[in-house]
Amino acid sequence: MYKVYGDMVSGNCYKIKLLMQLLGIEHEWIHVDVLKGETRTEAFGEMNKNLKIPVLAISADEYLAESNAILNYLAEGSVFLPKDRLQKARVLEWQFFEQYSHEPYIAVARYINKYLGLPEELAEEYLSKQEGGHKALAVMESHLKESKYLVGDALTIADISLYAYTHVADEGGFDLNTYPNIKRWLDTIESTPRYINMLGQAT
Amino acid sequence: MYKVYGDMVSGNCYKIKLLMQLLGIEHEWIHVDVLKGETRTEAFGEMNKNLKIPVLAISADEYLAESNAILNYLAEGSVFLPKDRLQKARVLEWQFFEQYSHEPYIAVARYINKYLGLPEELAEEYLSKQEGGHKALAVMESHLKESKYLVGDALTIADISLYAYTHVADEGGFDLNTYPNIKRWLDTIESTPRYINMLGQAT
Repeated sequence: MYKVYGDMVSGNCYKIKLLMQLLGIEHEWIHVDVLKGETRTEAFGEMNKNLKIPVLAISADEYLAESNAILNYLAEGSVFLPKDRLQKARVLEWQFFEQYSHEPYIAVARYINKYLGLPEELAEEYLSKQEGGHKALAVMESHLKESKYLVGDALTIADISLYAYTHVADEGGFDLNTYPNIKRWLDTIESTPRYINMLGQAT
Repeated sequence: MYKVYGDMVSGNCYKIKLLMQLLGIEHEWIHVDVLKGETRTEAFGEMNKNLKIPVLAISADEYLAESNAILNYLAEGSVFLPKDRLQKARVLEWQFFEQYSHEPYIAVARYINKYLGLPEELAEEYLSKQEGGHKALAVMESHLKESKYLVGDALTIADISLYAYTHVADEGGFDLNTYPNIKRWLDTIESTPRYINMLGQAT
C-alpha cells in the first residue's frame, strides 16, 4: 500500500490526496509538520534529498517527490491523464506553469498570510507576490473563458494541480470575484463525484 | 516543419535546441529578444498567454509552451524518455525540481549578472539567489555521486533539462569546482554524439 508523507493543508500535498480519492487508491497518510522541522531530519532526507513534501512511498526503498510528478505517476492509465501525445504535453504545460508562474506567488502569499500570520518583516514580500499571482490568474481566466477544463473536455490532473492553490487563493489575499470563469471552473471540480476538500471532507 | 520561438542563450530555449539536435529533428528557429519586449506583443500572446519563451509551433494554430513540456512532447517514443512508469515519473521529478528549486536561483542569478550587468539595485537579490542555487547543486551532486545520469543508466531529457543552466552556473556566480560529480556529468553530456553548445557549435 502506498504511503504519502505530507500535510493536507499544503496545496502540493492536497493534490495527491484529491487524486487518490478520485481514483479510489488506498493509502496511508503520514502527517509531516514543516514548521516543526520534520522535513529537515536525516530520515526525511533519505526519502527526498530536496527536503520537501509531499513524498510518495512506492515501496520500502522507492520514494517519489514533486507533487506533479506524483500525480503523473498515479494517473497513468486513468481517465485523468490523456493518452494523446499533444494533450498529455498540455497537461504538463499547465503543471509547469503552476510550479513556475502560479505557486511561487499564490501559495507563498498564502503561506506568509495564513501560516506565518503576515509578520511586519514579510509584508513587503507578501505585497510583491500579488502582481505575479494576478498575472497567473489572468492567464487561467482567459483560457477558461473558452474551455470548461484546462485540457480537453474532461477533468485531468492539470485541473487538480491548478485547483489546489487556486481555490484557497483568497487566503493569500487574492479576490477571485473578478475571475468569473475561474469560479465556475472551481465549482465544476467541486461537484466531481468523490471530491473531498482540504480537510478531507466530502462537500 | 516545427518552428521554435526562442533565444539560444536562454537555458530554457537551449534545452529544446539540444534535444532537437540529438534527435535530428528539422526545425526553423525564430529568434525572440526578451529584452526588446518581443514576448510582450499581441502576436506573441496568441501563441503563449503567459508571454514566455520558448514556444514550439506544432502547426499553424497549435503552440506548446513550457520548456519541459516541449521536451516531453518531442522525446515521446525516443531513447531520451524512458517507457517504464516509475522512470518516466523520475524524469518529471527532476524537471519539476529544475523549475522550482534550481532555475529560479541559478538562471535568475545568471540573468542578473550576465544580461543586466549586476546593477547596484539588484545586488541584494543576486546574493539572495546564491544559497538556493547551492542547495540545488548539492542535491544534484549527492545524486550524481552514485549515478552516471539523473535517471537510469542512459541520457534522458531530465539530464538535458538540468544541464541547460547548470553548465553555465558560473555565469551566475556558482563555482562548480566544489561539485566534482556534477563536473563529470557535464563532461559526459558534452561527449554525447551530435551535442552542440549554446552557440550552436559542435565541440
